[in-house]
Amino acid sequence: MFESMFENVREKCPLIHNITNYVTVNDCANILIACGASPIMADDKDEVEDITTICAGLHINIGTLNRHSIASMLIAGKRANKLHHPVVLDPVGAGASKLRTDTAMQLLEDIDFTVIRGNISEIKTLAFGRGTTKGVDADVADKVTEENLDEIITFAKTFAKKTGAVITVTGAIDVVSDGRSTYCIRNGHPMMSSVSGTGCQLSAMVAAFITSNPNHALEAAAAAVSAMGLAGEIAHERLSEMDGNVTYRNYIIDAIYNMTPEQLGKGARYEVR
Amino acid sequence: MFESMFENVREKCPLIHNITNYVTVNDCANILIACGASPIMADDKDEVEDITTICAGLHINIGTLNRHSIASMLIAGKRANKLHHPVVLDPVGAGASKLRTDTAMQLLEDIDFTVIRGNISEIKTLAFGRGTTKGVDADVADKVTEENLDEIITFAKTFAKKTGAVITVTGAIDVVSDGRSTYCIRNGHPMMSSVSGTGCQLSAMVAAFITSNPNHALEAAAAAVSAMGLAGEIAHERLSEMDGNVTYRNYIIDAIYNMTPEQLGKGARYEVR
Amino acid sequence: MFESMFENVREKCPLIHNITNYVTVNDCANILIACGASPIMADDKDEVEDITTICAGLHINIGTLNRHSIASMLIAGKRANKLHHPVVLDPVGAGASKLRTDTAMQLLEDIDFTVIRGNISEIKTLAFGRGTTKGVDADVADKVTEENLDEIITFAKTFAKKTGAVITVTGAIDVVSDGRSTYCIRNGHPMMSSVSGTGCQLSAMVAAFITSNPNHALEAAAAAVSAMGLAGEIAHERLSEMDGNVTYRNYIIDAIYNMTPEQLGKGARYEVR
Repeated sequence: MFESMFENVREKCPLIHNITNYVTVNDCANILIACGASPIMADDKDEVEDITTICAGLHINIGTLNRHSIASMLIAGKRANKLHHPVVLDPVGAGASKLRTDTAMQLLEDIDFTVIRGNISEIKTLAFGRGTTKGVDADVADKVTEENLDEIITFAKTFAKKTGAVITVTGAIDVVSDGRSTYCIRNGHPMMSSVSGTGCQLSAMVAAFITSNPNHALEAAAAAVSAMGLAGEIAHERLSEMDGNVTYRNYIIDAIYNMTPEQLGKGARYEVR
Repeated sequence: MFESMFENVREKCPLIHNITNYVTVNDCANILIACGASPIMADDKDEVEDITTICAGLHINIGTLNRHSIASMLIAGKRANKLHHPVVLDPVGAGASKLRTDTAMQLLEDIDFTVIRGNISEIKTLAFGRGTTKGVDADVADKVTEENLDEIITFAKTFAKKTGAVITVTGAIDVVSDGRSTYCIRNGHPMMSSVSGTGCQLSAMVAAFITSNPNHALEAAAAAVSAMGLAGEIAHERLSEMDGNVTYRNYIIDAIYNMTPEQLGKGARYEVR
Repeated sequence: MFESMFENVREKCPLIHNITNYVTVNDCANILIACGASPIMADDKDEVEDITTICAGLHINIGTLNRHSIASMLIAGKRANKLHHPVVLDPVGAGASKLRTDTAMQLLEDIDFTVIRGNISEIKTLAFGRGTTKGVDADVADKVTEENLDEIITFAKTFAKKTGAVITVTGAIDVVSDGRSTYCIRNGHPMMSSVSGTGCQLSAMVAAFITSNPNHALEAAAAAVSAMGLAGEIAHERLSEMDGNVTYRNYIIDAIYNMTPEQLGKGARYEVR
């Protein structure tokens, strides 16, 4: 299943519109190319409608939001909805400031998202309108573990039903749910949290996967999550003793570039609940 | 010829003012240093005149333009013209939105550019006022090939005469024309299109080359194009089986850093028509 | 001493608020993670108070300033002062434009900085209200050498007394002074000046070090400076013949990631005057 999801990205080379932060934007562009898609970044309100229109999917990331980009997110999101283009929301740091929480809530209200991807603290903030995000990382009290996995699954299912979006909670175990089925994905490596922007990169890649697999948002999002985790595993094996988090970042994107759909099919570790 | 063009960059270490996008800006800064220049990025209208004045050349890239940076581009460009500083335009994504096309046209009208560098779709958009850009990549129907090379050369010559700028169309074969002579450059590697921002990096480097070689804009631009392509070849040879597009990006800039003028002289593959 | 300074960063994992430029912001994020801290970038005036409040330290860098980010710097700086959070100023390019010089002066007037870090041209601009910065690099006439070291030390001491900040002048020899004691640090490698943003990265890391070592701003800043220089040495030894400035950038951050406090203790080369 994941294999064909990935094959479709490589075949269709979808053009993805990204309104994203200036911290990890270059990595988002390069990982989109690495997985087979084509990125365009544009965040001015005078052009986002045009750009969304020529693209096949939209990725909204609130990482370094400001009043101008927020307006553009709303315009682009509504346009994408009208065109029935898939839209991904990455609510980076929701819970860390009133502006981020309010913006995330407003985006949720005005736009139908196909997938929402964040860490558990960010997604809880969206679900409950308030949060305990530690900056842009998940709160320690909040991590996904084997112990609270059932609880997180229930939470994700409920929030997916409420929003109509595929809820993607990433962490030590990734949980991807459309309210009916839930993928629990166990790919990845703990060192991925030492790289700035692996979450942003994944959100961009999710946009490419769901755009290339219409009517399979759940499986496509799960495939992207698994691919990112598998890339983290492959990249980690390459590291020599002196390599650190930046070389690791480079190797992760390299691993996506070289990954075959077959490799993803074999390397994916997940269960459906 | 290319050899001495490159030597002059290394000798003069020109300070280059960049008003560019936030996606590939870091790579632009590092490749400018790698080739021997010194970069400064500044895009606020309250300082661009000052910055252009202390610099020796200007690089304008519309990659993530907005109303503020557009105003700054116009101010900086006019100031550079007044000071007789060379100016490069990279019309990223012209044709992809009305804002980009209109901005590119307005820049063309208000500023005398020394060099305009883009893919064939972007340059056609500038020439005809409309285009079929596929996001930030050239339209497939539009690629430069041996079959349409004569036609592209004629197009570039005509547009160079009209604008007074050296027209630099990059692709599988690069065409650099001042309306009289045209360089057809066959350096490079197809994998360069898998790296976000090789075009932006090249535009920045063109600014360094033409700034260091006054009255030789055609040869200097051609030398920069050839150097970038040669770096793509050298970097590609270094790649191991697990390396992908991000390591390739790093190796390309590394190759510029280590390239000697002699190496460029020997490695350049071009004809003048 | 430096050893325990570094240990405290790794132990406390401080959350650092960065208002910084879009050129080197990704490297700042990754080096903060590499040294043990957690970064958040936020520059909109509607959220900086919130973000500063949840963070433990603030890093202000004027690299690509604009009217919006300047307002945010002032708001965040005042908030940090009120909360007694340490604040670092990196006056990138002060002296290169009136806007940068004026902004740096206004920040100095309105905010109590714990540490101010820049090259000698930038710091002189702050001290004398005008400067001869060559873009974002120190003026050649201005470099720190063994010959003018005594003079620079006296200058740094005087400016430290005047501002109440630890003055950190980086160059071939780094000078860190609180007006009473001065660290002269001889770590580093000349090739570090071929990497865009080593100064920005250091400023971010200084914020992490002083935040983790309250009441030891001088020693903490000196430890960060020494760590950066040592990383430059370690990274340089790794370089192969074909590696250039971008691989060097990656290896420097990698070296911080892998550096142990003991390694810093042994590798630090400094004298206190």
